[in-house]
Amino acid sequence: MGSAMPTEKIILGIDPGTNIMGYGVLKVMGRQAEMVAMGVIDLHKFEDHYLKLGHIFERISGIISSYLPDEMAIEAPFFGKNVQSMLKLGRAQGVAMAAAIQRQVPITEYAPMKIKMAITGRGTASKEQVADMLRRMLKLNEEDMGKYMDATDALGAAYCHYLQMGRPESDKKFSSWKDFARKKGII
Amino acid sequence: MGSAMPTEKIILGIDPGTNIMGYGVLKVMGRQAEMVAMGVIDLHKFEDHYLKLGHIFERISGIISSYLPDEMAIEAPFFGKNVQSMLKLGRAQGVAMAAAIQRQVPITEYAPMKIKMAITGRGTASKEQVADMLRRMLKLNEEDMGKYMDATDALGAAYCHYLQMGRPESDKKFSSWKDFARKKGII
Repeated sequence: MGSAMPTEKIILGIDPGTNIMGYGVLKVMGRQAEMVAMGVIDLHKFEDHYLKLGHIFERISGIISSYLPDEMAIEAPFFGKNVQSMLKLGRAQGVAMAAAIQRQVPITEYAPMKIKMAITGRGTASKEQVADMLRRMLKLNEEDMGKYMDATDALGAAYCHYLQMGRPESDKKFSSWKDFARKKGII
Repeated sequence: MGSAMPTEKIILGIDPGTNIMGYGVLKVMGRQAEMVAMGVIDLHKFEDHYLKLGHIFERISGIISSYLPDEMAIEAPFFGKNVQSMLKLGRAQGVAMAAAIQRQVPITEYAPMKIKMAITGRGTASKEQVADMLRRMLKLNEEDMGKYMDATDALGAAYCHYLQMGRPESDKKFSSWKDFARKKGII
């Protein structure tokens, strides 16, 4: 568990909403991926906007301190809401990102469709289909999944990032976007 | 300067943009207000979104460490841009707010019209008119104002907050919104 194999990585997935923020922590080692933690940060109770932002910052900072992720993967929203709700969503994401930035944790964003595609092979898969696939791939029990349904998208983002990173054994191995871009000749 | 009079307060004003972020630091003591610092954080050079957010977090954290503000006042945007730019603006504001939240600095937002009204008496005043009034009230020199024109709105937010707080000698004295609300019998 605690031994430091060079290829072990912790990925923190975040599904950033303004009312519910889901998170999922994945430990990956070679071709193995294991769910370490998943849960939700319930923000309904905060009527005050700043207390809400403060709570997000504290909780995400706490999760980072607990699991020491090497990378953070965020489910990027589709754009369809009004400007005022987008500003609020942006602030919620901003404080979550600041918690990662402060600990030097690199952030990668994935569009919901990209996550669904990576996990199920279909960009139009339902939330249930994504959850079912994650449950089988990560050998999760029904109870965990039922309890933290809102964390599924966060875990999905982390798993998508794991797939994107490339399995360590393959020639697709890269440690970051920069590394990836360099290896692909983009930069 | 360094003596701790009970009524001395440092207010950090922020004008949060995604390309230029202005800041202004005001020291207020009784009926006296003095500009301590003003400047801009130039974000044009950051093509990478995360590096930009990281830079905002670092700079605002640094300014807070340097001047130890008691309060932060932010110029709140009007809503008129598209959803994608609002999300970006929200993120930029979010990381700036996280820097304040982390140091337990309370945040207050003011609409641009409210700031103009508080400083010039007219909600439709031009940027130049606001700058001119600030220059006279705070006895700023032309050079400072010319050099940091983009910081005017930030200084304006701080000054508006100072006026809103109430002058310490008057019966309008209150240390926070909660205090204000309590004194006014709202809560």
